[in-house]
Amino acid sequence: MEGMPLSMGSLRTLPWYVAGSQVLGVACVVITGVWMGHYRGGYAWDGSAQFNNHPLCMVLGLVFLYGDAVLVYRVFRNETKRSVKILHALLHMMALVISIVGLVAVFDFHSSAKISHMYSLHSWCGMLTFVLFVLQWLLGLGFFLFPWASAQLRSWYLPLHVFFGLLLLAMSVGSCLLGITEKLLFSIMESYIMFTGEGVLANTLGLLLVCFGVVVGYVVTREDFRRPPNPEEEALSVHFKTLSEGEIPSSP
Amino acid sequence: MEGMPLSMGSLRTLPWYVAGSQVLGVACVVITGVWMGHYRGGYAWDGSAQFNNHPLCMVLGLVFLYGDAVLVYRVFRNETKRSVKILHALLHMMALVISIVGLVAVFDFHSSAKISHMYSLHSWCGMLTFVLFVLQWLLGLGFFLFPWASAQLRSWYLPLHVFFGLLLLAMSVGSCLLGITEKLLFSIMESYIMFTGEGVLANTLGLLLVCFGVVVGYVVTREDFRRPPNPEEEALSVHFKTLSEGEIPSSP
Repeated sequence: MEGMPLSMGSLRTLPWYVAGSQVLGVACVVITGVWMGHYRGGYAWDGSAQFNNHPLCMVLGLVFLYGDAVLVYRVFRNETKRSVKILHALLHMMALVISIVGLVAVFDFHSSAKISHMYSLHSWCGMLTFVLFVLQWLLGLGFFLFPWASAQLRSWYLPLHVFFGLLLLAMSVGSCLLGITEKLLFSIMESYIMFTGEGVLANTLGLLLVCFGVVVGYVVTREDFRRPPNPEEEALSVHFKTLSEGEIPSSP
Repeated sequence: MEGMPLSMGSLRTLPWYVAGSQVLGVACVVITGVWMGHYRGGYAWDGSAQFNNHPLCMVLGLVFLYGDAVLVYRVFRNETKRSVKILHALLHMMALVISIVGLVAVFDFHSSAKISHMYSLHSWCGMLTFVLFVLQWLLGLGFFLFPWASAQLRSWYLPLHVFFGLLLLAMSVGSCLLGITEKLLFSIMESYIMFTGEGVLANTLGLLLVCFGVVVGYVVTREDFRRPPNPEEEALSVHFKTLSEGEIPSSP
Protein backbone atom coordinates (compact mmCIF):
# COMPACT_ATOMS: atom_id res chain seq x y z
CA MET A 1 0.00 0.00 0.00
CA GLU A 2 1.19 3.47 -0.73
CA GLY A 3 0.25 4.42 2.84
CA MET A 4 -1.63 7.04 4.77
CA PRO A 5 -2.10 9.91 2.28
CA LEU A 6 -4.24 7.71 -0.01
CA SER A 7 -6.23 6.31 2.94
CA MET A 8 -6.81 9.74 4.45
CA GLY A 9 -7.94 11.07 1.06
CA SER A 10 -10.29 8.18 0.33
CA LEU A 11 -11.77 8.36 3.84
CA ARG A 12 -13.31 11.70 2.86
CA THR A 13 -15.62 9.82 0.51
CA LEU A 14 -16.92 7.54 3.30
CA PRO A 15 -19.64 9.98 4.51
CA TRP A 16 -20.96 10.23 0.94
CA TYR A 17 -21.29 6.48 0.63
CA VAL A 18 -22.95 6.26 4.07
CA ALA A 19 -25.34 9.12 3.19
CA GLY A 20 -26.10 7.40 -0.13
CA SER A 21 -26.90 4.15 1.67
CA GLN A 22 -29.30 5.96 4.00
CA VAL A 23 -31.10 7.73 1.13
CA LEU A 24 -31.46 4.35 -0.63
CA GLY A 25 -32.59 2.58 2.56
CA VAL A 26 -35.22 5.22 3.42
CA ALA A 27 -36.41 5.23 -0.21
CA CYS A 28 -36.89 1.44 -0.06
CA VAL A 29 -38.93 1.65 3.15
CA VAL A 30 -41.05 4.57 1.83
CA ILE A 31 -41.70 2.91 -1.57
CA THR A 32 -42.70 -0.36 0.15
CA GLY A 33 -45.03 1.64 2.41
CA VAL A 34 -46.56 3.47 -0.56
CA TRP A 35 -46.91 0.28 -2.61
CA MET A 36 -48.79 -1.56 0.15
CA GLY A 37 -50.63 1.56 1.38
CA HIS A 38 -51.71 3.06 -1.94
CA TYR A 39 -51.95 0.11 -4.35
CA ARG A 40 -52.66 -2.87 -2.05
CA GLY A 41 -55.32 -1.52 0.34
CA GLY A 42 -53.39 -0.16 3.30
CA TYR A 43 -52.64 -1.68 6.68
CA ALA A 44 -54.69 -3.61 9.23
CA TRP A 45 -54.19 -6.59 11.56
CA ASP A 46 -56.95 -8.70 10.01
CA GLY A 47 -58.33 -9.53 6.57
CA SER A 48 -56.27 -9.27 3.39
CA ALA A 49 -54.64 -6.00 4.57
CA GLN A 50 -52.84 -7.96 7.31
CA PHE A 51 -50.48 -9.31 4.64
CA ASN A 52 -49.36 -5.75 3.81
CA ASN A 53 -47.48 -5.49 7.10
CA HIS A 54 -45.19 -8.31 5.93
CA PRO A 55 -43.27 -6.54 3.12
CA LEU A 56 -42.99 -3.30 5.11
CA CYS A 57 -41.63 -5.05 8.23
CA MET A 58 -39.17 -7.21 6.30
CA VAL A 59 -37.74 -4.30 4.27
CA LEU A 60 -37.52 -2.11 7.38
CA GLY A 61 -36.14 -4.87 9.65
CA LEU A 62 -34.11 -7.38 7.67
CA VAL A 63 -32.81 -4.94 5.04
CA PHE A 64 -32.63 -1.33 6.28
CA LEU A 65 -31.97 -1.85 10.01
CA TYR A 66 -29.85 -4.94 9.30
CA GLY A 67 -27.73 -2.94 6.82
CA ASP A 68 -27.34 -0.08 9.28
CA ALA A 69 -26.28 -2.53 12.00
CA VAL A 70 -23.53 -3.72 9.65
CA LEU A 71 -22.48 -0.14 8.85
CA VAL A 72 -21.95 1.02 12.46
CA TYR A 73 -18.36 -0.29 12.49
CA ARG A 74 -17.51 2.09 9.67
CA VAL A 75 -19.63 5.06 10.80
CA PHE A 76 -18.52 5.16 14.45
CA ARG A 77 -14.82 4.89 13.75
CA ASN A 78 -13.54 6.55 16.89
CA GLU A 79 -15.98 5.29 19.55
CA THR A 80 -14.90 2.40 21.77
CA LYS A 81 -15.32 -1.03 20.22
CA ARG A 82 -17.60 -2.04 23.11
CA SER A 83 -20.07 0.83 22.48
CA VAL A 84 -20.17 0.05 18.78
CA LYS A 85 -20.71 -3.66 19.50
CA ILE A 86 -23.67 -2.80 21.76
CA LEU A 87 -25.18 -0.54 19.06
CA HIS A 88 -24.58 -3.32 16.47
CA ALA A 89 -26.41 -5.84 18.71
CA LEU A 90 -29.25 -3.39 19.51
CA LEU A 91 -29.91 -2.54 15.86
CA HIS A 92 -29.94 -6.26 15.07
CA MET A 93 -32.38 -6.80 17.97
CA MET A 94 -34.70 -4.14 16.50
CA ALA A 95 -34.36 -5.82 13.09
CA LEU A 96 -35.21 -9.16 14.74
CA VAL A 97 -38.31 -7.86 16.54
CA ILE A 98 -39.66 -6.05 13.46
CA SER A 99 -39.06 -9.05 11.22
CA ILE A 100 -40.87 -11.33 13.72
CA VAL A 101 -43.89 -8.97 13.46
CA GLY A 102 -43.61 -9.26 9.66
CA LEU A 103 -43.50 -13.06 9.82
CA VAL A 104 -46.46 -13.26 12.21
CA ALA A 105 -48.43 -11.01 9.82
CA VAL A 106 -47.94 -13.32 6.83
CA PHE A 107 -48.46 -16.61 8.74
CA ASP A 108 -51.67 -15.20 10.33
CA PHE A 109 -52.89 -13.98 6.94
CA HIS A 110 -52.21 -17.39 5.33
CA SER A 111 -54.00 -19.20 8.18
CA SER A 112 -57.07 -16.92 7.97
CA ALA A 113 -57.23 -17.22 4.18
CA LYS A 114 -56.63 -21.01 4.29
CA ILE A 115 -53.47 -20.68 2.15
CA SER A 116 -50.67 -23.25 2.66
CA HIS A 117 -47.56 -22.04 4.44
CA MET A 118 -44.01 -22.35 3.18
CA TYR A 119 -44.61 -23.71 -0.31
CA SER A 120 -42.82 -21.05 -2.38
CA LEU A 121 -39.16 -20.40 -3.12
CA HIS A 122 -39.62 -16.96 -1.54
CA SER A 123 -40.78 -18.58 1.72
CA TRP A 124 -37.94 -21.14 1.68
CA CYS A 125 -35.26 -18.49 1.08
CA GLY A 126 -36.85 -15.99 3.45
CA MET A 127 -37.19 -18.50 6.30
CA LEU A 128 -33.63 -19.77 5.75
CA THR A 129 -32.41 -16.16 5.93
CA PHE A 130 -34.40 -15.51 9.12
CA VAL A 131 -33.23 -18.70 10.88
CA LEU A 132 -29.58 -18.03 9.97
CA PHE A 133 -30.01 -14.42 11.13
CA VAL A 134 -31.31 -15.54 14.56
CA LEU A 135 -28.46 -18.05 14.85
CA GLN A 136 -25.89 -15.43 13.82
CA TRP A 137 -27.31 -12.94 16.34
CA LEU A 138 -27.20 -15.47 19.20
CA LEU A 139 -23.67 -16.60 18.30
CA GLY A 140 -22.59 -12.95 17.98
CA LEU A 141 -23.94 -12.19 21.47
CA GLY A 142 -22.32 -15.28 22.94
CA PHE A 143 -18.93 -14.83 21.29
CA PHE A 144 -18.44 -11.07 21.24
CA LEU A 145 -20.66 -9.28 23.78
CA PHE A 146 -20.47 -11.60 26.78
CA PRO A 147 -17.15 -12.78 28.17
CA TRP A 148 -17.81 -16.51 27.73
CA ALA A 149 -15.70 -17.21 24.66
CA SER A 150 -11.90 -17.37 24.76
CA ALA A 151 -9.87 -14.96 22.62
CA GLN A 152 -8.92 -17.90 20.39
CA LEU A 153 -12.55 -18.90 19.84
CA ARG A 154 -13.44 -15.28 19.06
CA SER A 155 -10.67 -14.94 16.52
CA TRP A 156 -11.78 -18.24 14.91
CA TYR A 157 -15.43 -17.14 14.72
CA LEU A 158 -14.98 -13.50 13.65
CA PRO A 159 -14.29 -14.05 9.92
CA LEU A 160 -17.24 -16.48 9.79
CA HIS A 161 -19.47 -13.90 11.54
CA VAL A 162 -18.44 -11.27 8.99
CA PHE A 163 -18.84 -13.60 5.99
CA PHE A 164 -22.28 -14.77 7.10
CA GLY A 165 -23.22 -11.18 7.99
CA LEU A 166 -22.71 -10.03 4.39
CA LEU A 167 -24.22 -13.24 3.03
CA LEU A 168 -27.36 -12.65 5.10
CA LEU A 169 -27.65 -9.08 3.77
CA ALA A 170 -27.51 -10.48 0.22
CA MET A 171 -30.04 -13.21 1.12
CA SER A 172 -32.38 -10.65 2.73
CA VAL A 173 -32.31 -8.47 -0.39
CA GLY A 174 -32.74 -11.54 -2.62
CA SER A 175 -35.71 -12.79 -0.55
CA CYS A 176 -37.36 -9.35 -0.82
CA LEU A 177 -36.95 -9.44 -4.62
CA LEU A 178 -38.56 -12.90 -4.72
CA GLY A 179 -41.40 -11.55 -2.57
CA ILE A 180 -41.88 -8.56 -4.91
CA THR A 181 -42.07 -10.88 -7.94
CA GLU A 182 -44.56 -13.19 -6.16
CA LYS A 183 -46.77 -10.32 -5.02
CA LEU A 184 -46.84 -8.74 -8.49
CA LEU A 185 -47.71 -12.01 -10.23
CA PHE A 186 -50.42 -12.82 -7.67
CA SER A 187 -51.92 -9.30 -7.86
CA ILE A 188 -51.42 -7.84 -11.34
CA MET A 189 -50.29 -10.67 -13.64
CA GLU A 190 -52.45 -9.40 -16.51
CA SER A 191 -51.38 -5.75 -16.35
CA TYR A 192 -47.74 -6.23 -15.20
CA ILE A 193 -46.76 -6.90 -18.82
CA MET A 194 -48.13 -3.47 -19.81
CA PHE A 195 -45.66 -1.51 -17.65
CA THR A 196 -48.38 -0.26 -15.29
CA GLY A 197 -47.47 2.17 -12.50
CA GLU A 198 -47.59 -0.48 -9.76
CA GLY A 199 -45.35 -2.87 -11.69
CA VAL A 200 -42.76 -0.21 -12.49
CA LEU A 201 -42.83 1.07 -8.88
CA ALA A 202 -42.28 -2.43 -7.48
CA ASN A 203 -39.51 -3.20 -10.02
CA THR A 204 -37.83 0.10 -9.06
CA LEU A 205 -38.10 -0.92 -5.39
CA GLY A 206 -36.31 -4.16 -6.30
CA LEU A 207 -33.42 -2.29 -7.97
CA LEU A 208 -33.16 0.17 -5.06
CA LEU A 209 -32.94 -2.75 -2.60
CA VAL A 210 -30.07 -4.18 -4.68
CA CYS A 211 -28.36 -0.74 -4.70
CA PHE A 212 -28.70 -0.47 -0.89
CA GLY A 213 -27.10 -3.90 -0.46
CA VAL A 214 -24.31 -3.04 -2.90
CA VAL A 215 -23.41 0.27 -1.20
CA VAL A 216 -23.42 -1.29 2.29
CA GLY A 217 -21.36 -4.25 1.03
CA TYR A 218 -18.88 -1.91 -0.67
CA VAL A 219 -18.41 0.31 2.40
CA VAL A 220 -17.89 -2.71 4.67
CA THR A 221 -15.40 -4.52 2.42
CA ARG A 222 -13.37 -1.53 1.18
CA GLU A 223 -9.91 -1.83 2.70
CA ASP A 224 -9.25 1.87 3.40
CA PHE A 225 -12.63 2.35 5.11
CA ARG A 226 -11.64 -0.04 7.95
CA ARG A 227 -11.57 1.19 11.55
CA PRO A 228 -8.13 2.13 12.82
CA PRO A 229 -6.56 -0.47 15.17
CA ASN A 230 -7.54 -0.16 18.83
CA PRO A 231 -5.94 -1.56 21.96
CA GLU A 232 -9.00 -3.51 23.18
CA GLU A 233 -9.14 -5.47 19.94
CA GLU A 234 -5.37 -5.97 19.93
CA ALA A 235 -5.56 -7.51 23.40
CA LEU A 236 -8.24 -9.92 22.27
CA SER A 237 -6.06 -11.09 19.38
CA VAL A 238 -9.05 -10.74 17.11
CA HIS A 239 -6.85 -10.17 14.09
CA PHE A 240 -7.70 -10.92 10.52
CA LYS A 241 -7.00 -9.41 7.19
CA THR A 242 -10.03 -10.55 5.27
CA LEU A 243 -13.56 -9.02 5.09
CA SER A 244 -13.65 -7.58 8.55
CA GLU A 245 -15.71 -6.05 11.31
CA GLY A 246 -12.83 -3.89 12.33
CA GLU A 247 -9.12 -3.67 12.36
CA ILE A 248 -6.10 -4.06 10.17
CA PRO A 249 -3.55 -5.97 12.24
CA SER A 250 -0.76 -3.70 13.36
CA SER A 251 1.70 -6.54 12.93
CA PRO A 252 1.57 -9.72 10.85
CA MET B 1 -2.04 -14.47 12.32
CA GLU B 2 -0.53 -17.44 14.06
CA GLY B 3 1.33 -18.21 10.82
CA MET B 4 2.02 -21.07 8.48
CA PRO B 5 1.01 -24.18 10.49
CA LEU B 6 -2.63 -23.03 10.68
CA SER B 7 -2.66 -22.00 6.99
CA MET B 8 -1.08 -25.27 5.88
CA GLY B 9 -3.63 -27.22 7.92
CA SER B 10 -6.65 -25.32 6.67
CA LEU B 11 -5.43 -25.56 3.05
CA ARG B 12 -6.13 -29.29 3.25
CA THR B 13 -9.85 -28.49 3.37
CA LEU B 14 -9.71 -26.41 0.13
CA PRO B 15 -10.14 -29.42 -2.25
CA TRP B 16 -13.26 -30.46 -0.30
CA TYR B 17 -14.84 -27.03 -0.71
CA VAL B 18 -13.91 -26.96 -4.41
CA ALA B 19 -15.30 -30.49 -4.91
CA GLY B 20 -18.47 -29.48 -3.05
CA SER B 21 -18.89 -26.44 -5.29
CA GLN B 22 -18.58 -28.65 -8.40
CA VAL B 23 -21.13 -31.15 -7.12
CA LEU B 24 -23.53 -28.28 -6.39
CA GLY B 25 -22.86 -26.60 -9.74
CA VAL B 26 -23.39 -29.79 -11.76
CA ALA B 27 -26.53 -30.58 -9.74
CA CYS B 28 -27.92 -27.11 -10.59
CA VAL B 29 -27.30 -27.58 -14.33
CA VAL B 30 -28.75 -31.12 -14.31
CA ILE B 31 -31.86 -30.14 -12.31
CA THR B 32 -32.49 -27.16 -14.61
CA GLY B 33 -32.11 -29.50 -17.61
CA VAL B 34 -34.52 -32.04 -16.09
CA TRP B 35 -37.03 -29.34 -15.09
CA MET B 36 -37.18 -27.87 -18.60
CA GLY B 37 -36.77 -31.25 -20.35
CA HIS B 38 -39.18 -33.35 -18.32
CA TYR B 39 -41.78 -30.92 -16.95
CA ARG B 40 -41.73 -28.09 -19.52
CA GLY B 41 -41.73 -29.87 -22.88
CA GLY B 42 -38.06 -30.24 -23.78
CA TYR B 43 -35.84 -28.19 -26.06
CA ALA B 44 -36.28 -26.70 -29.55
CA TRP B 45 -35.36 -23.46 -31.32
CA ASP B 46 -38.95 -22.50 -32.12
CA GLY B 47 -42.37 -22.51 -30.45
CA SER B 48 -42.81 -22.50 -26.68
CA ALA B 49 -39.91 -24.95 -26.19
CA GLN B 50 -37.49 -22.25 -27.38
CA PHE B 51 -37.91 -20.57 -24.01
CA ASN B 52 -36.56 -23.68 -22.26
CA ASN B 53 -33.05 -22.99 -23.55
CA HIS B 54 -33.02 -19.75 -21.53
CA PRO B 55 -32.90 -21.15 -17.97
CA LEU B 56 -30.44 -23.90 -18.94
CA CYS B 57 -28.04 -21.49 -20.67
CA MET B 58 -28.18 -18.91 -17.87
CA VAL B 59 -27.55 -21.47 -15.09
CA LEU B 60 -24.75 -23.11 -17.09
CA GLY B 61 -23.18 -19.84 -18.27
CA LEU B 62 -23.75 -17.06 -15.75
CA VAL B 63 -23.74 -19.27 -12.64
CA PHE B 64 -21.73 -22.50 -13.07
CA LEU B 65 -19.04 -21.39 -15.58
CA TYR B 66 -18.93 -17.90 -14.04
CA GLY B 67 -18.39 -19.42 -10.57
CA ASP B 68 -15.68 -21.73 -11.89
CA ALA B 69 -13.94 -18.79 -13.59
CA VAL B 70 -13.84 -17.07 -10.18
CA LEU B 71 -12.49 -20.23 -8.50
CA VAL B 72 -9.49 -20.75 -10.81
CA TYR B 73 -7.31 -18.42 -8.74
CA ARG B 74 -7.76 -20.73 -5.74
CA VAL B 75 -7.67 -24.06 -7.61
CA PHE B 76 -4.53 -23.40 -9.72
CA ARG B 77 -2.41 -22.11 -6.89
CA ASN B 78 1.00 -22.93 -8.30
CA GLU B 79 0.55 -22.19 -12.01
CA THR B 80 1.85 -18.89 -13.36
CA LYS B 81 -0.48 -15.95 -12.83
CA ARG B 82 -0.59 -15.36 -16.60
CA SER B 83 -1.87 -18.90 -17.34
CA VAL B 84 -4.52 -18.61 -14.65
CA LYS B 85 -5.59 -15.19 -15.96
CA ILE B 86 -6.02 -16.64 -19.47
CA LEU B 87 -8.09 -19.54 -18.09
CA HIS B 88 -10.16 -17.02 -16.04
CA ALA B 89 -10.82 -14.93 -19.19
CA LEU B 90 -11.60 -18.03 -21.33
CA LEU B 91 -14.11 -19.45 -18.84
CA HIS B 92 -15.76 -16.03 -18.67
CA MET B 93 -15.84 -15.93 -22.48
CA MET B 94 -17.61 -19.33 -22.54
CA ALA B 95 -20.03 -18.01 -19.90
CA LEU B 96 -20.61 -14.92 -22.07
CA VAL B 97 -21.29 -16.90 -25.28
CA ILE B 98 -23.64 -19.37 -23.55
CA SER B 99 -25.54 -16.59 -21.79
CA ILE B 100 -25.94 -14.71 -25.11
CA VAL B 101 -27.55 -17.88 -26.56
CA GLY B 102 -29.83 -17.96 -23.49
CA LEU B 103 -30.81 -14.31 -23.98
CA VAL B 104 -31.47 -14.74 -27.71
CA ALA B 105 -33.70 -17.74 -26.84
CA VAL B 106 -35.94 -15.74 -24.51
CA PHE B 107 -36.10 -12.58 -26.68
CA ASP B 108 -36.95 -14.71 -29.74
CA PHE B 109 -39.59 -16.61 -27.80
CA HIS B 110 -41.16 -13.36 -26.52
CA SER B 111 -41.20 -11.87 -30.04
CA SER B 112 -42.82 -14.99 -31.57
CA ALA B 113 -45.42 -15.18 -28.79
CA LYS B 114 -46.10 -11.41 -28.90
CA ILE B 115 -45.08 -11.00 -25.24
CA SER B 116 -43.54 -7.66 -24.16
CA HIS B 117 -39.83 -7.65 -23.43
CA MET B 118 -38.18 -6.41 -20.26
CA TYR B 119 -41.24 -5.69 -18.13
CA SER B 120 -40.47 -7.91 -15.10
CA LEU B 121 -38.13 -7.49 -12.14
CA HIS B 122 -36.40 -10.72 -13.26
CA SER B 123 -35.66 -9.17 -16.66
CA TRP B 124 -34.46 -5.89 -15.13
CA CYS B 125 -32.11 -7.65 -12.67
CA GLY B 126 -30.99 -10.23 -15.22
CA MET B 127 -30.20 -7.63 -17.90
CA LEU B 128 -28.39 -5.41 -15.37
CA THR B 129 -26.31 -8.44 -14.34
CA PHE B 130 -25.51 -9.32 -17.98
CA VAL B 131 -24.54 -5.73 -18.94
CA LEU B 132 -22.31 -5.35 -15.86
CA PHE B 133 -20.78 -8.78 -16.62
CA VAL B 134 -19.88 -7.73 -20.20
CA LEU B 135 -18.44 -4.45 -18.90
CA GLN B 136 -16.46 -6.26 -16.19
CA TRP B 137 -15.11 -8.77 -18.74
CA LEU B 138 -14.01 -6.02 -21.15
CA LEU B 139 -12.41 -3.97 -18.37
CA GLY B 140 -10.74 -7.13 -17.02
CA LEU B 141 -9.25 -7.87 -20.46
CA GLY B 142 -8.10 -4.28 -20.92
CA PHE B 143 -6.60 -3.85 -17.47
CA PHE B 144 -5.13 -7.27 -16.70
CA LEU B 145 -4.58 -9.37 -19.84
CA PHE B 146 -3.24 -6.77 -22.27
CA PRO B 147 -0.35 -4.49 -21.40
CA TRP B 148 -2.23 -1.21 -21.89
CA ALA B 149 -2.88 -0.24 -18.28
CA SER B 150 -0.17 1.06 -15.99
CA ALA B 151 0.65 -0.83 -12.77
CA GLN B 152 -0.96 2.00 -10.81
CA LEU B 153 -4.21 1.76 -12.80
CA ARG B 154 -4.22 -2.03 -12.35
CA SER B 155 -3.76 -1.77 -8.60
CA TRP B 156 -6.58 0.83 -8.44
CA TYR B 157 -8.95 -1.34 -10.47
CA LEU B 158 -8.19 -4.77 -8.97
CA PRO B 159 -10.21 -4.45 -5.72
CA LEU B 160 -13.15 -3.07 -7.76
CA HIS B 161 -12.85 -5.99 -10.22
CA VAL B 162 -12.92 -8.45 -7.31
CA PHE B 163 -15.83 -6.71 -5.52
CA PHE B 164 -17.93 -6.54 -8.69
CA GLY B 165 -16.94 -10.11 -9.56
CA LEU B 166 -18.49 -11.45 -6.34
CA LEU B 167 -21.42 -9.03 -6.61
CA LEU B 168 -22.16 -10.32 -10.12
CA LEU B 169 -22.12 -13.93 -8.88
CA ALA B 170 -24.69 -12.96 -6.22
CA MET B 171 -26.75 -11.05 -8.83
CA SER B 172 -26.63 -14.00 -11.24
CA VAL B 173 -27.88 -16.39 -8.56
CA GLY B 174 -30.54 -13.87 -7.47
CA SER B 175 -31.72 -13.35 -11.08
CA CYS B 176 -32.02 -17.15 -11.52
CA LEU B 177 -34.15 -17.37 -8.37
CA LEU B 178 -36.42 -14.59 -9.68
CA GLY B 179 -36.69 -16.48 -12.97
CA ILE B 180 -37.59 -19.73 -11.15
CA THR B 181 -40.35 -17.94 -9.21
CA GLU B 182 -41.71 -16.29 -12.39
CA LYS B 183 -41.68 -19.56 -14.36
CA LEU B 184 -43.45 -21.47 -11.54
CA LEU B 185 -46.16 -18.83 -11.15
CA PHE B 186 -46.71 -18.60 -14.92
CA SER B 187 -46.84 -22.40 -15.32
CA ILE B 188 -48.22 -24.03 -12.18
CA MET B 189 -49.74 -21.26 -10.03
CA GLU B 190 -52.71 -23.45 -9.04
CA SER B 191 -50.73 -26.56 -8.08
CA TYR B 192 -47.57 -24.87 -6.71
CA ILE B 193 -49.36 -24.34 -3.40
CA MET B 194 -49.93 -28.11 -3.11
CA PHE B 195 -46.21 -28.96 -2.99
CA THR B 196 -46.26 -30.72 -6.38
CA GLY B 197 -43.10 -32.42 -7.66
CA GLU B 198 -42.27 -29.64 -10.13
CA GLY B 199 -42.61 -26.92 -7.50
CA VAL B 200 -40.46 -28.74 -4.95
CA LEU B 201 -37.84 -29.57 -7.62
CA ALA B 202 -37.62 -25.93 -8.73
CA ASN B 203 -37.49 -24.65 -5.12
CA THR B 204 -34.69 -27.15 -4.43
CA LEU B 205 -32.87 -25.85 -7.52
CA GLY B 206 -33.16 -22.35 -6.05
CA LEU B 207 -31.58 -23.42 -2.75
CA LEU B 208 -28.80 -25.34 -4.54
CA LEU B 209 -27.99 -22.23 -6.61
CA VAL B 210 -27.70 -20.25 -3.36
CA CYS B 211 -25.44 -22.97 -1.88
CA PHE B 212 -23.19 -22.92 -4.99
CA GLY B 213 -22.83 -19.14 -4.69
CA VAL B 214 -22.11 -19.38 -0.95
CA VAL B 215 -19.39 -22.04 -1.32
CA VAL B 216 -17.67 -20.17 -4.19
CA GLY B 217 -17.90 -16.89 -2.26
CA TYR B 218 -16.49 -18.53 0.88
CA VAL B 219 -13.53 -20.14 -0.94
CA VAL B 220 -12.65 -16.88 -2.69
CA THR B 221 -12.86 -14.64 0.40
CA ARG B 222 -11.27 -16.97 2.97
CA GLU B 223 -7.93 -15.47 3.93
CA ASP B 224 -5.90 -18.69 4.23
CA PHE B 225 -7.07 -19.98 0.84
CA ARG B 226 -5.31 -17.12 -0.99
CA ARG B 227 -2.59 -17.86 -3.56
CA PRO B 228 0.96 -17.55 -2.26
CA PRO B 229 2.77 -14.36 -3.39
CA ASN B 230 4.52 -14.59 -6.75
CA PRO B 231 7.23 -12.44 -8.33
CA GLU B 232 5.21 -11.41 -11.42
CA GLU B 233 2.46 -9.93 -9.25
CA GLU B 234 5.01 -8.27 -6.95
CA ALA B 235 6.61 -6.56 -9.93
CA LEU B 236 3.25 -5.21 -11.04
CA SER B 237 2.62 -3.72 -7.59
CA VAL B 238 -0.83 -5.22 -7.66
CA HIS B 239 -0.99 -5.37 -3.89
CA PHE B 240 -4.09 -5.30 -1.81
CA LYS B 241 -5.27 -6.84 1.39
CA THR B 242 -8.98 -6.89 0.80
CA LEU B 243 -11.13 -9.48 -1.07
CA SER B 244 -8.59 -10.53 -3.60
CA GLU B 245 -7.89 -12.29 -6.85
CA GLY B 246 -4.56 -13.38 -5.56
CA GLU B 247 -1.84 -12.45 -3.22
CA ILE B 248 -1.20 -11.38 0.31
CA PRO B 249 1.33 -8.57 0.07
CA SER B 250 4.70 -9.74 1.24
CA SER B 251 5.35 -6.32 2.77
CA PRO B 252 2.91 -3.64 3.96
